[in-house]
Amino acid sequence: MKMRIAIGQINSTVGDLKGNFEKMLSMIKAAFDRGARVIVFPELCVTGYPPEDLVLRLDFLKKNVETVEKLAVETRDMDIVIVAGFIDFSDDVYNAAAILYGGEIQGVYRKMILPNYGVFDEFRYFAKGRVPLVVEDEHGTRMGITICEDIWVPEGPMRMEVIRGNAGIIVNLSASPFEKNKPLLREKMTSTRARDYRIPIIYANSIGGQDELVFDGYSFAVDHEGNVIARAKGFDEDLLLVDIHLEEAVLSKLHDPRKRQIKEENVTCDVVKITASFLTSGESTPSTCQKLKDEYEQVLDALILGTRDYIKKNGFQKVIVGLSGGIDSSLVASIATMALGPDNVVGVLMPSQFTSSESLEDARKLAQNLGIETFTIPIKGIFERFMEELEPVFKGLPWDVTEENLQARIRGNILMAISNKFKYLVLVTGNKSEFSVGYATLYGDMAGGFAVIKDLYKTEVYRVARLVNERFGREVIPERIFKKPPSAELRPGQVDQEKLPPYEILDEILKMYIDKDMPIDKIIEEGFEVETVKSVVQMVNNSEYKRRQSPPGIKVSSRAFGKERRLPITNHYDPWK
Amino acid sequence: MKMRIAIGQINSTVGDLKGNFEKMLSMIKAAFDRGARVIVFPELCVTGYPPEDLVLRLDFLKKNVETVEKLAVETRDMDIVIVAGFIDFSDDVYNAAAILYGGEIQGVYRKMILPNYGVFDEFRYFAKGRVPLVVEDEHGTRMGITICEDIWVPEGPMRMEVIRGNAGIIVNLSASPFEKNKPLLREKMTSTRARDYRIPIIYANSIGGQDELVFDGYSFAVDHEGNVIARAKGFDEDLLLVDIHLEEAVLSKLHDPRKRQIKEENVTCDVVKITASFLTSGESTPSTCQKLKDEYEQVLDALILGTRDYIKKNGFQKVIVGLSGGIDSSLVASIATMALGPDNVVGVLMPSQFTSSESLEDARKLAQNLGIETFTIPIKGIFERFMEELEPVFKGLPWDVTEENLQARIRGNILMAISNKFKYLVLVTGNKSEFSVGYATLYGDMAGGFAVIKDLYKTEVYRVARLVNERFGREVIPERIFKKPPSAELRPGQVDQEKLPPYEILDEILKMYIDKDMPIDKIIEEGFEVETVKSVVQMVNNSEYKRRQSPPGIKVSSRAFGKERRLPITNHYDPWK
Repeated sequence: MKMRIAIGQINSTVGDLKGNFEKMLSMIKAAFDRGARVIVFPELCVTGYPPEDLVLRLDFLKKNVETVEKLAVETRDMDIVIVAGFIDFSDDVYNAAAILYGGEIQGVYRKMILPNYGVFDEFRYFAKGRVPLVVEDEHGTRMGITICEDIWVPEGPMRMEVIRGNAGIIVNLSASPFEKNKPLLREKMTSTRARDYRIPIIYANSIGGQDELVFDGYSFAVDHEGNVIARAKGFDEDLLLVDIHLEEAVLSKLHDPRKRQIKEENVTCDVVKITASFLTSGESTPSTCQKLKDEYEQVLDALILGTRDYIKKNGFQKVIVGLSGGIDSSLVASIATMALGPDNVVGVLMPSQFTSSESLEDARKLAQNLGIETFTIPIKGIFERFMEELEPVFKGLPWDVTEENLQARIRGNILMAISNKFKYLVLVTGNKSEFSVGYATLYGDMAGGFAVIKDLYKTEVYRVARLVNERFGREVIPERIFKKPPSAELRPGQVDQEKLPPYEILDEILKMYIDKDMPIDKIIEEGFEVETVKSVVQMVNNSEYKRRQSPPGIKVSSRAFGKERRLPITNHYDPWK
Repeated sequence: MKMRIAIGQINSTVGDLKGNFEKMLSMIKAAFDRGARVIVFPELCVTGYPPEDLVLRLDFLKKNVETVEKLAVETRDMDIVIVAGFIDFSDDVYNAAAILYGGEIQGVYRKMILPNYGVFDEFRYFAKGRVPLVVEDEHGTRMGITICEDIWVPEGPMRMEVIRGNAGIIVNLSASPFEKNKPLLREKMTSTRARDYRIPIIYANSIGGQDELVFDGYSFAVDHEGNVIARAKGFDEDLLLVDIHLEEAVLSKLHDPRKRQIKEENVTCDVVKITASFLTSGESTPSTCQKLKDEYEQVLDALILGTRDYIKKNGFQKVIVGLSGGIDSSLVASIATMALGPDNVVGVLMPSQFTSSESLEDARKLAQNLGIETFTIPIKGIFERFMEELEPVFKGLPWDVTEENLQARIRGNILMAISNKFKYLVLVTGNKSEFSVGYATLYGDMAGGFAVIKDLYKTEVYRVARLVNERFGREVIPERIFKKPPSAELRPGQVDQEKLPPYEILDEILKMYIDKDMPIDKIIEEGFEVETVKSVVQMVNNSEYKRRQSPPGIKVSSRAFGKERRLPITNHYDPWK
């Protein structure tokens, strides 16, 4: 006898109660057909994650509950236990899991450990659950329920479900956002928890893009020894089936007295008894174990999925990208092409008198390699007309950043005009190094709906661009683009390195200052020049106002701009004082 | 014998540890000179409120502690007890109050009730305090300490400080952001708490603008019967002194057995004993009681202070405003003039072929009335040049919103170019009705550093504009501007009411849908047409992406856009489905 359990790794859309319901229903049918006795869905799969202030709407909460009730009714004739994330709206509002069987909601587990850091604001919305819960089938087999953060703390409900609830298996419903190394970290942590208590764990993660976040999927199962025995696809929907032999775990416990030592503690756990059987006989189903890709391959997948979902879920079909012939716009156009196909990507070339012929050539070559359409609209005439009209006010004042920004803003206007006329979404091409130090023009190159590589430092941009060429199997991004010194080409002979330290140095300082919040003296101790560190930190602090008005982009690091990093604009803190 | 207590209502700046220190020191000296034995400062006055993710920096936390230590040392020779808000960084991080006397930190109270709703994110940063605290002087007089939210819940630490700690007076350190009706609400609530326990309460609030927030000050004292006996200025720094006769409260308690009934409960409270005396003899000082202004007078004050502080604290001196001759830009220019003086405000007129001569005249008249400089830069030529360059792409497609947006964006570019050239900050003139339904152009009229009236509905704009003329004592905003139908003047004969319901109706629907999160059917029940409600709700939901890239503006309502309303951009929730 074994437990055949399915993970319904679906791509929910926030607020799309009906669409999410339909996805769940079709996964349940498929799992049932394949002999699964239990199916586990991700955290808040009914509403999508994170629903943010939709949770403050009564009508939304009610419809979410109705959706779960409807799901129970529609699946009443299928002999399968369903565990689905939804918002429990009863004496208070909870991030919860409903246990459905035989047409009814058999029980509700309420998340006990609520994250309120990084990108998470769960205390804003939810009350804490107070009681762990196990579901018991007619054979007495017990399945402990946990939701995401619950399992990340050593003393969460899982411990009580094992000690007091005598759970034989733990399931975890997650909406764990992607960041570099996160998929591996999740497995390591879960593996440790499994070994700690000699119990198999089923980890069901969301997939899909939601504004700044990408959920990578990679749901998995670990056995009681902590081995990963099954893994779902990354960055795609999947139905993962796995057979768990519960006796093995019990046998293993007999040989490990550690758990039994703490058994007598005074903790409580609810038990929901249902008339279903978790167990099935007959032939085992071989479990699939998808490969966990390399770190930056995952990053590229995240950028593709995040872009595709933002575009499609927001009702767009096509995108436009300003092509400068530089590495950033080349990478963004390539990602867009991978996400949407070449017919849905348009490159716009907007040369000025400072645009080198090499840049134009490189941009055209890239577009040709990708097979995307291009428009060419020169900006010189418009720029001159602006300067003419501004002359009575500027009265011959010397050229400065004003004229550079104006060129960038004319380009922004052109992209937005095309966007308005044809309903294409504008992709922004700035990288994290630029967003960090404010080396970008508000309403200029920062104008657009979605900033694909906003969380990639420049040095990482090159790295991911290499992977793009590898994945295409040919030189899509021309080699010359990798080689030439980065330049905004907004005045004669301009290169980024005039105003900024070399990117190899800049990015290292930024990682320490932004991603790790390291004190300045520690950064200097790492071997960087005081003046360089000082100027970088000042640039970062002084450009908060630009970031506040920047478009959303895809989080791939442990500290992305946007909801994950919340600094005041008005801020006189100077670490040197 | 009486207790002479001072409230140091200072305008802290976030991160300006040194500047805040100096403000505190000078208030302490003044209070001491005037015979105060205790001075209470607002919540987190050392760091400014809210410090947001600065709290995640080790160096910042340490310097904040050092600042408090330095304050203790510098005031060691003054016989006055100081209660100051800072971040306690010990076994964890707490929103705390330090009790300083004789050169030392005598004790620390840690906020027990942390707000994590609306504009507040305190769970992101702080651990909860666990023990209430009273400070006892050499006569045995006890002062209970509370911080902001602590006093807003009926079962917070104040109750325990009274019941178990035997406090004779309660102080509350606040950083309570302004919104309509808030100053009165604060006093009503505090008055009830005072009466409930027959105890005087000293409420010390912050003042000053910090990004989206304005702290209005209006610190006050209530006696044991709940009467407001002293009130500081609104929207300005102030040192408020008040004499409290503690015997009266004790006598009153003898006549009120209610408190004594609950005295025996099992609650704890820390006591910090200090060698100071809270009490003083001699003549009483008459306490001042500033008038609490009318609701919209407060709103106007908030807009002026919020604008002034944003500009000055961010290192600007002058601002520019695009003047259209409409009510919104007229109000914003007037507020800017009140905040900064006419020499620091420049109006920019940017007529097109659709600009009526009346609009130009009205804009010029307004500028003249305010005494501000103007620039006039026509946009027609630039617009035509744009259209010429775009023609190969647009290929004769009909005029639509593209051309309207383009005009707005050209104006945005001109304002930003002047901003860049002269280091003036651009004020954005959009109101809450426009921001709600997306009736504004991203990077066009939405371009700029600060959106002064972002949280005022159009109907409120007229109301506040009337107050402006009253306060100036003459017709600064020309009467014709109040009378004419609102128009963006982006095509011939355009008026707002073509695309939007009349503002009287629109604003009522928006207040219900946005400010109150009311379900659609309830809004319709209030007597609005289904189709109107539907179209308004759709416009609101579809313009989330614009608001995400909008500049910060001043919160004056109970639900301002920005950190107070957090909705996903990608959002398929349709209340009609």
